Amino acid sequence: MAHGLNGDALTEFLINGNIDEINKLIQFIHPTDILLAISQYEGNIIDLFQNLSPNIIADIIDEAEDEDKYNLLSIHSEIIQKKIIHEMSSDELVDLLESVSEDEAKNIMIKMDKEDVDGVKELLTYPAESAGGIMATEFISVKENMTIGDTLVYLQKEAPEAETSYYIYVSDENHLLKGVISLRDIVVSSFDVRISDIMNSNAMSIPVDMDQEEVGHIFEKYGFLTMPVVNESMQILGIVTADDIMGILSDEHTEDLYRLAGLQEDEKVTGSLKASVSSRLPWLFVNLVTAIMAAATVSLFEGTIQKVVALATFMPIVAGMGGNAGTQTLTIIIRSIALGEIDAKNSKKILLKEFGVGLCTGVSVGIAVALLGWFWEKNVVFGVVIGLSMVLNMMAATISGFAVPVVLKKLDIDPALASAVFVTTVTDVLGFFFFLGLATLFLPFLV
Amino acid sequence: MAHGLNGDALTEFLINGNIDEINKLIQFIHPTDILLAISQYEGNIIDLFQNLSPNIIADIIDEAEDEDKYNLLSIHSEIIQKKIIHEMSSDELVDLLESVSEDEAKNIMIKMDKEDVDGVKELLTYPAESAGGIMATEFISVKENMTIGDTLVYLQKEAPEAETSYYIYVSDENHLLKGVISLRDIVVSSFDVRISDIMNSNAMSIPVDMDQEEVGHIFEKYGFLTMPVVNESMQILGIVTADDIMGILSDEHTEDLYRLAGLQEDEKVTGSLKASVSSRLPWLFVNLVTAIMAAATVSLFEGTIQKVVALATFMPIVAGMGGNAGTQTLTIIIRSIALGEIDAKNSKKILLKEFGVGLCTGVSVGIAVALLGWFWEKNVVFGVVIGLSMVLNMMAATISGFAVPVVLKKLDIDPALASAVFVTTVTDVLGFFFFLGLATLFLPFLV
Repeated sequence: MAHGLNGDALTEFLINGNIDEINKLIQFIHPTDILLAISQYEGNIIDLFQNLSPNIIADIIDEAEDEDKYNLLSIHSEIIQKKIIHEMSSDELVDLLESVSEDEAKNIMIKMDKEDVDGVKELLTYPAESAGGIMATEFISVKENMTIGDTLVYLQKEAPEAETSYYIYVSDENHLLKGVISLRDIVVSSFDVRISDIMNSNAMSIPVDMDQEEVGHIFEKYGFLTMPVVNESMQILGIVTADDIMGILSDEHTEDLYRLAGLQEDEKVTGSLKASVSSRLPWLFVNLVTAIMAAATVSLFEGTIQKVVALATFMPIVAGMGGNAGTQTLTIIIRSIALGEIDAKNSKKILLKEFGVGLCTGVSVGIAVALLGWFWEKNVVFGVVIGLSMVLNMMAATISGFAVPVVLKKLDIDPALASAVFVTTVTDVLGFFFFLGLATLFLPFLV
Repeated sequence: MAHGLNGDALTEFLINGNIDEINKLIQFIHPTDILLAISQYEGNIIDLFQNLSPNIIADIIDEAEDEDKYNLLSIHSEIIQKKIIHEMSSDELVDLLESVSEDEAKNIMIKMDKEDVDGVKELLTYPAESAGGIMATEFISVKENMTIGDTLVYLQKEAPEAETSYYIYVSDENHLLKGVISLRDIVVSSFDVRISDIMNSNAMSIPVDMDQEEVGHIFEKYGFLTMPVVNESMQILGIVTADDIMGILSDEHTEDLYRLAGLQEDEKVTGSLKASVSSRLPWLFVNLVTAIMAAATVSLFEGTIQKVVALATFMPIVAGMGGNAGTQTLTIIIRSIALGEIDAKNSKKILLKEFGVGLCTGVSVGIAVALLGWFWEKNVVFGVVIGLSMVLNMMAATISGFAVPVVLKKLDIDPALASAVFVTTVTDVLGFFFFLGLATLFLPFLV
């Protein structure tokens, strides 16, 4: 990885370094690295903060995980806390407030400036996972009739307070979004050029109520570094930057993976035993219901199994292979839904293809399993029964692997959350039903 | 979504629009939107290109999927193709060349300038999925002793040719990376300030041979918009930008999900039946081997099942619940490995926790299943047998769910690729072995 001061050397420097050196160098050390040093420090962590200024501490708190933010703030004296809070931007304050209990939030609010309280109260009206909930409100906008020279003077005055941005937005006196201009356009243009002559007047914007996952997909699709957030009247309210989006996309991906496996999104690999058990038990009990339904199906055919006990041996193959085929279809359909690749136009064609995939893979695997059953049991009808039930179950698997997430999506339920349990129920119950049912029909040829 | 010209209106504009209007407006329409219009157009797509300049066509080709790039180039006349190629940057050319056959690559190379051929040949020496394979070589670097005024003049001269970047890197005469400065620092500083006075001399950099997934995680972790790529001597070779990284992270997410389910990474939901079948069959046959091992385990106990046929009914519960518990642990461990959250220090603690999770969830689910078995079969020993085998199998599930991906990672095999099949084998084979083995031991109490 990239070199630089980190690990034990950084800890040593923060505790025993010369204060002037620290002040000079600390701005070039990423807060994420300081946070790592803090998490690995075995002494009292307040030692590491003694030489840091409030604005550096504010940056560190902003980078911290939600559950650590309040601790990192509250270890300081009331006076220092007030200074740290004063250094935080409104979206950072919102993140902090959303990570704490009601009492802790009150404790933070009384230390805030009036102006910050107003800004934060407005931001808190947007859902945390919407564009409004993730946008920064400290951004720079300029007017169309300014020249590049005017703009540079304005930036030298205003920019230090605002969120870092590669793009600057152009708005009119009513805050209506008129266009966008990049810092590069500014630095490569002569001083007397007007903003209106070089701005992109077709700037794309994000509605304030859009879900953060959809915002992420727009960033991915177009590769923007920043986008403006607007209300219904197209007034610019804030900006969203690609660095926030990368964190959101990563969290959404973890969420997809975890939901497919039935884990709570906030389970941490390094978390407590109690947290992990309570994250996993609900899904296990939901699946227990599925497993009991599968068992009930088998119990209908106990008489047949008693006569042909080899059926019990082959049961796991039919159900297991159906489960695998269902998971394959489910995964590709869920990912395509997330990426917006499935629409009303192509969904019929995709369903037909999955039907075909079920048939082709079912026939391939079915022939292999039929031969295995024939030779193992020395009975050709046994082979036909297991082969045929394999074809039927693989088709049930791919069709339900398509239909379940598509229907859940239509019902506005996250397909990643609930699809797996429905598809497994289908492949287990139908798998046992096809196999043991066919065996019962052909029983005279099997004993 | 964001408004602007797109869909049918865009198609209409490209075909029948006034050429001056098109030239004026096209730079403000994102190439991704033009690409979408092309994919939905039902006529001859060359119609849509007739009024577009070679540099716009180059942007469109750069945004296209790999398999479409060559088609979008080769529909033009040889002269236009040459102009389009001339407009592409070296990393865009490399992407194009890597997406085509050898003959097609030769056909493209003969249309390239000598200078581009040299740049491209160098880039092609880096693996496609390394930092060197994804970096752009058209970047701007300045010297430490330049003033902001000098820098602005230099940017006005050089920037139009270079990759858009929020950061400008500072290097010496031997191209050694000395620091970094943002465009914002430049626009907010007075003209006589020296670069050396305001640059960050602790710039983080990426080694040219780092895997693109790891590069993605560094961007996620630190939230950078651009990072410099360096060789072993710390000479700067190129830059990587966050917009490229977002696409890479999205592809890596798809790869993780697909590998867990046993799909080929390049399977497309809208692809052909043949492609889907050949993507899925290999994994299904690998799993068939697992299923046969599970069946072989059951066959060892056919004598016991013959005597207590209710064992067949409860078999799916033991194996299925073990599979679910194994998938939960597997998913959280694979994700943590990808995010770098597991190291030598904490892995023992995590293993112990997973042992505890297996025990606790096993006991909870085991008690429920034991009661079910007791009442269903009216036999308390039957309940004890299934409950106890459930506890043992859930512990086998969480321990193998931890151990399998960790060991695969140590062997440099992607844990997402092969873990699921090993863990399922463990939970199926051991599940049946515990359940039917215990039943055989306690057989006198069950009949």
